[in-house]
Amino acid sequence: MPEHKRQNALLPPRRKSKQILIGGVKVGGGAPVVVQSMTSTLTQDITATVRQIKELEEVDCELVRVAVPDIEAARAIKDIKKQISIPLIADIHFDYRLALAALESGADGLRLNPGNIGEPERIKKVVLAAKERGVPIRIGVNAGSLPSRMDSPVKPENDKGVDSRWSLPRTSIRGGNDRRRSIPDRMVDAALAQIRLLESLDFDLIKVSLKAFDVPTTVAAYRAIADKITYPLHIGITEAGPPRTGVIRSSVGIGTLLYLGIGDTIRVSLTAHPREEVIAGWEILKSLDLRQHGPVLVSCPTCGRAEVDIVKLAQEVEAELTRIKKPIRVAVMGCAVNGPGEAKDADVGIAAGKGRAILFKKGRKIGVVEEKDIVRALMREVERL
Amino acid sequence: MPEHKRQNALLPPRRKSKQILIGGVKVGGGAPVVVQSMTSTLTQDITATVRQIKELEEVDCELVRVAVPDIEAARAIKDIKKQISIPLIADIHFDYRLALAALESGADGLRLNPGNIGEPERIKKVVLAAKERGVPIRIGVNAGSLPSRMDSPVKPENDKGVDSRWSLPRTSIRGGNDRRRSIPDRMVDAALAQIRLLESLDFDLIKVSLKAFDVPTTVAAYRAIADKITYPLHIGITEAGPPRTGVIRSSVGIGTLLYLGIGDTIRVSLTAHPREEVIAGWEILKSLDLRQHGPVLVSCPTCGRAEVDIVKLAQEVEAELTRIKKPIRVAVMGCAVNGPGEAKDADVGIAAGKGRAILFKKGRKIGVVEEKDIVRALMREVERL
Repeated sequence: MPEHKRQNALLPPRRKSKQILIGGVKVGGGAPVVVQSMTSTLTQDITATVRQIKELEEVDCELVRVAVPDIEAARAIKDIKKQISIPLIADIHFDYRLALAALESGADGLRLNPGNIGEPERIKKVVLAAKERGVPIRIGVNAGSLPSRMDSPVKPENDKGVDSRWSLPRTSIRGGNDRRRSIPDRMVDAALAQIRLLESLDFDLIKVSLKAFDVPTTVAAYRAIADKITYPLHIGITEAGPPRTGVIRSSVGIGTLLYLGIGDTIRVSLTAHPREEVIAGWEILKSLDLRQHGPVLVSCPTCGRAEVDIVKLAQEVEAELTRIKKPIRVAVMGCAVNGPGEAKDADVGIAAGKGRAILFKKGRKIGVVEEKDIVRALMREVERL
Repeated sequence: MPEHKRQNALLPPRRKSKQILIGGVKVGGGAPVVVQSMTSTLTQDITATVRQIKELEEVDCELVRVAVPDIEAARAIKDIKKQISIPLIADIHFDYRLALAALESGADGLRLNPGNIGEPERIKKVVLAAKERGVPIRIGVNAGSLPSRMDSPVKPENDKGVDSRWSLPRTSIRGGNDRRRSIPDRMVDAALAQIRLLESLDFDLIKVSLKAFDVPTTVAAYRAIADKITYPLHIGITEAGPPRTGVIRSSVGIGTLLYLGIGDTIRVSLTAHPREEVIAGWEILKSLDLRQHGPVLVSCPTCGRAEVDIVKLAQEVEAELTRIKKPIRVAVMGCAVNGPGEAKDADVGIAAGKGRAILFKKGRKIGVVEEKDIVRALMREVERL
């Protein structure tokens, strides 16, 4: 499992949050930002679900969520849990019996909005059962399913005129003279209402998410709640779409929040095999230097100065690097302008010229190789590190 | 060409910058953030370069840069310019004669660090020729090729203890007790030195970039320079790598800066056909609601609650949408939990249940369609908008 590293001094400080434990995995309170995903199989189909979770474990997914639409799914969790290595979170809507059954089956976390469950007695049963087992509950507010009663102008419940490190100036969140609550404000209101419900039952193993498809809305909502509560935050962009566009939207939204110091666990939502979500999640964390996870490939975009086929070369090196687990930096550069500088900065790198390349290792030139030998020579040095 | 839209009220205010004109394209001063790219062909090969620029124009690239490694390339610009529709920027290093020749060939912009050209007389010639033609110069500092003389501890030239909207607190940039200048500070120093050189020749058609492969370094450098100068900023992550990882790194870095209000033109650097850079650039701008550019597809990640194959459905809709140019929002949702909410928010959307889907248009349910007819029915409504 990848290691945590010291916070990069160029990043703004991280928001301080309480720590919760989901299974054995720490979330919040200075723990490394956790990568999670959700299965797309029918949870009732134990074989298919276990197979998919194992695929997620292979790419270092750290927490997995499964949908629990019925009692059969809730019971399946017991068998699924026996065959997987990472903690499992049950995603539940409306029916409190599913939450109770999921807890009995050994779910390590719940994603559930208590306000959607109905009668106070039912909520109480679920919360007590979670508390007994030390199982955290994530309150998840989505812009797309805000309670409609909050559609009308309401007196803000928490209107102190925010002015902190994490929040936007009030006017930005309000969007001018609109007297109605903005969507981010309404998302925060909805989350705070759910949180109060749990707190009134003396429950504080809470994690919160406030997702929207719009990045400005999502970031504004998280910034607005960030200093109102100390619970850890699960961040993501909801329904971000297919990989081509969804990865970009998620990277911008999750990346911006993480840069600002907000976010204790991330989920990239893609309309794709969830493996893609985990891979993208790790890349986001690596790009901000928040976690290490396998090699990083620096390669130039190639231009009219390049004298070798850099696209092909980078693809070959990228393919070779998939089997390397070490957190190293490898550079493939195509010219004399930026090449040597970047290649020298890497653990191993090449700066290619006409028909040959200079090989660098830890900032030192260690040789010159023919074009046809570049990949082999580079990989030999990678293996040796 | 895509239209500009009003700033999203949930975004922090944009940094105010001077406006420059590159060809007919406005950069800075409140103009829409401009998407640019760079050719990977040999500039001397006019046919190949023109073909690639036309491919870039097809995906709405707004500015294109070409490498000018020799006099033949500088002269080729004249013929290339005749056959393309977007302004062209010449990328020049070290040799002032190439800059002069590129200007004579009609280049609309130069990317050139005057300090690298050598003798003052040569710099003066280039700057005067650019000024005569009203051609802007981009000063481009890359972390990988910082002047080595700045490697030693130096007295900061601009050490006022920054405390503005755009800057990080001093300590963050400095990285603790290190008495040496941090890389972002050194990048800023290098850019300011180049800027002073141009200003001393009474030249102010300046654009500046400060790129690194590291996102924290890049963001810190831009934040540090943002309130020291008013010139427009060209932003990007340099040598971000092949598309799979490079798109994520670029989205996080460029997205964070744009969210913070920094950046007047963007270039995504990928080791790939530059078309991919332009497509990714547009998606970054769309995700932050800074520009509109064709349809946006909202689709859920699918989970154990979905009763239709959402991945396949979303892929089909995505493929159909490539021929649509209107800036509309289309939703493909797989279940009853978030589906109707998101689908209602879209211009056109479906929320699928077992074997059929509810069709929404502008927030109104307009029908129920069989699974096999979903794509056709959705696209019919898209065409009608």
